[in-house]
Amino acid sequence: MSIGGVTANTTSLLRVMNERAVFGEIFRMGRVSRPELAQATGLSKPTISVALADLERAKLVRAVGLRTGNAGRAALLYEIRPQAGWVLAIDVGRNYVRLALADLIGDIVARRDEQSRAETPHELLAQLTEIAAALLADAGLAAEDITLSVFGTPGIHDKETGALLLAPNLPGWELPGAVDRLADVVAAPYVLENDVDLAAVGEGAYGLGQGVSHFVFVSIGTGIGMGVVIDGKLYRGSRGAAGEISYLPVGEGDPRVNPGRGMFESVASADGVVALARRLGLDPATAKDVFDAARAGDPLAARVLDAEIDHIAHALAGVTAVLDPELVVLGGGIGAQAGDLLAGRVAERLEALVALRPPRIEVSSIGQDAVLLGALAVGLAAARDYVFERTVTPG
Amino acid sequence: MSIGGVTANTTSLLRVMNERAVFGEIFRMGRVSRPELAQATGLSKPTISVALADLERAKLVRAVGLRTGNAGRAALLYEIRPQAGWVLAIDVGRNYVRLALADLIGDIVARRDEQSRAETPHELLAQLTEIAAALLADAGLAAEDITLSVFGTPGIHDKETGALLLAPNLPGWELPGAVDRLADVVAAPYVLENDVDLAAVGEGAYGLGQGVSHFVFVSIGTGIGMGVVIDGKLYRGSRGAAGEISYLPVGEGDPRVNPGRGMFESVASADGVVALARRLGLDPATAKDVFDAARAGDPLAARVLDAEIDHIAHALAGVTAVLDPELVVLGGGIGAQAGDLLAGRVAERLEALVALRPPRIEVSSIGQDAVLLGALAVGLAAARDYVFERTVTPG
Repeated sequence: MSIGGVTANTTSLLRVMNERAVFGEIFRMGRVSRPELAQATGLSKPTISVALADLERAKLVRAVGLRTGNAGRAALLYEIRPQAGWVLAIDVGRNYVRLALADLIGDIVARRDEQSRAETPHELLAQLTEIAAALLADAGLAAEDITLSVFGTPGIHDKETGALLLAPNLPGWELPGAVDRLADVVAAPYVLENDVDLAAVGEGAYGLGQGVSHFVFVSIGTGIGMGVVIDGKLYRGSRGAAGEISYLPVGEGDPRVNPGRGMFESVASADGVVALARRLGLDPATAKDVFDAARAGDPLAARVLDAEIDHIAHALAGVTAVLDPELVVLGGGIGAQAGDLLAGRVAERLEALVALRPPRIEVSSIGQDAVLLGALAVGLAAARDYVFERTVTPG
Repeated sequence: MSIGGVTANTTSLLRVMNERAVFGEIFRMGRVSRPELAQATGLSKPTISVALADLERAKLVRAVGLRTGNAGRAALLYEIRPQAGWVLAIDVGRNYVRLALADLIGDIVARRDEQSRAETPHELLAQLTEIAAALLADAGLAAEDITLSVFGTPGIHDKETGALLLAPNLPGWELPGAVDRLADVVAAPYVLENDVDLAAVGEGAYGLGQGVSHFVFVSIGTGIGMGVVIDGKLYRGSRGAAGEISYLPVGEGDPRVNPGRGMFESVASADGVVALARRLGLDPATAKDVFDAARAGDPLAARVLDAEIDHIAHALAGVTAVLDPELVVLGGGIGAQAGDLLAGRVAERLEALVALRPPRIEVSSIGQDAVLLGALAVGLAAARDYVFERTVTPG
């Protein structure tokens, strides 16, 4: 068979392409009829029928009843079969671990948040493995049902050595091969992403970044980091170190005093806030105490807040000069505790530091779930491709 | 006709797609035979023959003789017809205007560089129009032969008002509608791009950025700017202001003193270098005088150089923290005059300021031609699509 000289497997190739298009549209549209799929894909109704039959046979799609109430005939509806794939999302923080198990349409069927009990990589792996097993039991699934696991951790995964770089809050993970042991948590393919990068993805999929082409997610808390979204996609940089804004040259400190942290992080992280408050004569246990005191009118705490605003504004001036984002989403512990105190005044301070109007600055709407939801979004996108490739073959 | 349900204009659509693929491969490969095109595109030889016949009829491609010397039969070779399109590239600087006229394969057939005689937009337009006419005469072409003109200027084109923002060195162009008058220089479609962005494109097409996915071009001279290339493509930001690093919060100045310039530009541009030299007791006419004196061992000029290195290193620390580029290309007047004094010591200073190893820092290999070559690259890519769409129609 030949059209204009295109020969060989054109038929089966076209058929798989059509099935992929139909599968993708059902994901996008939810419950959908054949005529709707024909309109959305531009394919003919007979082609849609062939594709749907193949997708049903592969157990990726199922018929789900009739839509009635319209003038014409009732239309049979199709949807993704939720059980066609399972994603395990894992947020590994310093203080908390959060795990969620979701089906292929993203519904979370089991979830646990626990304080981290781990001092070593070995203990952390044990805790994660235990929670994962509990989630599987809750959902009545076996480990081999998991299509994909996605881990969010601080730092940068060095794929050559299997070590986790720039993650001082996870001691032991900087050793070669440490990351590879995550494969033992669940017997499934796994993906490791930087937690702040995942939070940016989460913000784009479920939060304030929905529909925004170019935005950044700035996490300020125990550590500081930024996730960069360009053209709706996560930008990682040449070595995965894009957005490591803890190293912005902000503040008056000497970067060589604390080379593991970076100038901006040294002054603007939770520790930096507490340290400045102590130098001014306050005695807070945490950064939250400082912000609470500022809210209550304490003049020394107000000075610490002023300094924090100034540091963040200078950092965002740098980010804006380089990236010109449409939106800055503030997250992380300090973003959550003090975002209301910071966002407006940072924007105001920024006016004097940037070329055009400052970008919009808003506090994350998904808060502490950002990393987990980002892991879920990454996992779902990959799992959809994965189950399609696994089950639909040409011919 | 129908394959797997794909109906209607499949044949003509496929035929145009095939022609586009063949046209693209000939651009990429230069002189090329039918068997080579079949291998490169995956299309059958009969399809290649049909596509080549159509492309020859449309005068986009021509046969150019036989390749001999191989064991088999001599193969007929095809190439892009250079006269199928013409691009005018125009670099509008403060002190110089540079124009080049090139055919569709990028060979420059006429070029002029002139000192800018213009004080007003009107005078600048007159000078550009006069040079463009001279180039057309040199090449024996008429204005309507030009497929596309590409202008590189400082600043940001505000498409809503037709004004040029952030270009203080081109007085008068900040007025609404000023940019629209560029259409009169040559009666052809035109594109306006930021000059530093074009220089980055030029560096990617013809200079050190070839084959590098993520790099930045940093121009330091009368003004300061940066072009950002991500995944091999120019990144402009949400309002075209990505890379406006003149506004990086570097140096000790108060940004409100000179809000039109930005903190980094105030200290590190040519004016900033001269100003610091004068404060130290030197009396240079230009920044070049300062660098020449530093090269000759003058201790005060050496201090100015140290300060320049420190400012650039802090700016690049910010750029690196945000973007993690693989390569930083230094260009602009100071890049050209003092790149050899700066690149190595900036990289050294940067070591203490960044999270991982600093990116490579190198001095532009195409120097003052970067903007013009970038305009040419942008123009050629657009002109190729343009002549294809104009001449090849389905059916």
